[in-house]
Amino acid sequence: MEPRIILGIDPGTNLMGWAILSVEKNVLKPLEIGVLELSKLKDPFLKLQRIFEEVCGLIATYRPHELAIEAPFYGKNVQSMLKLGRAQGMAMAAALVHKMPVYEYAPRKVKLSITGRGAASKEQVATMLQKTLSMAKVPVQWDATDALAVAVCHHYQTQFPVKEKKTSCKTWEAFLAQHPERRG
Amino acid sequence: MEPRIILGIDPGTNLMGWAILSVEKNVLKPLEIGVLELSKLKDPFLKLQRIFEEVCGLIATYRPHELAIEAPFYGKNVQSMLKLGRAQGMAMAAALVHKMPVYEYAPRKVKLSITGRGAASKEQVATMLQKTLSMAKVPVQWDATDALAVAVCHHYQTQFPVKEKKTSCKTWEAFLAQHPERRG
Repeated sequence: MEPRIILGIDPGTNLMGWAILSVEKNVLKPLEIGVLELSKLKDPFLKLQRIFEEVCGLIATYRPHELAIEAPFYGKNVQSMLKLGRAQGMAMAAALVHKMPVYEYAPRKVKLSITGRGAASKEQVATMLQKTLSMAKVPVQWDATDALAVAVCHHYQTQFPVKEKKTSCKTWEAFLAQHPERRG
Repeated sequence: MEPRIILGIDPGTNLMGWAILSVEKNVLKPLEIGVLELSKLKDPFLKLQRIFEEVCGLIATYRPHELAIEAPFYGKNVQSMLKLGRAQGMAMAAALVHKMPVYEYAPRKVKLSITGRGAASKEQVATMLQKTLSMAKVPVQWDATDALAVAVCHHYQTQFPVKEKKTSCKTWEAFLAQHPERRG
């Protein structure tokens, strides 16, 4: 069976992180991660065009089966949300043009899925990714790491869909009973 | 000389207005206006895909030279701005795929350009469009009218670029001196 390839994207207006994750018989392997630098482009339409072209290029090169994309964080102001929405829309449009299904995850959901804590730090997410993916070093390009995290989160969600619960488990045993995949 | 065709779009998450404006020797003619109904699609990705496909379809049918798009209004909350940003991004991506230049106008700029007043009502904009374009009736599909207005605004801007000034003209004569194109 061919490996399943997931394209992970962390959209932004100055930096767009991306990651290509290969999944074969539940073995996860990051094929490539990178960051698209957009801050030098002053024209907002050129930025959007660059995002669209980059995602089309990644799709042409790695032929991913799905796009997992991080949802912009809601705490920002309306102006930055509009810009982020457009940037995210460009990456989604590139996937839709190629008939790829698109899955979106909130940052909290990604962190919860990778580390078990929705409020985990970037360092904690990176360290857990390094262990899970047997990477030689902890990845330190945060935007690329976020993109890798959303791709891994998407794999987990399709394997063991976990809904975030508002009620917390009172004991560690109760937590493990609800989340058998987190037993070490 | 072939007429210049402008595609005007008023993006939204439930309704997307569109208009095809033909410009030949400064004679403006609306070729077609319409509204894409999106409220029945519950899946946000299907909505985005529908927007992208509709705009690609309009481009294939009318072969417009430029896209003029209305900027979402900033007064909304962050969640709706994100959604609007994505919807707008989809329409822009469709134009960018077809190598069409994209021009964006704030709602206030569109109203100012059509009626001379940035705070004009939808009815005033529609009435002025009816006169300017010699339309038999005042158009009443507001989303389509807004799309037509942004296309006409784009034509005016390329013909007589007017920057919105914070200082107002004290007399009608001073206004006409600054805006010779508004002399009846």
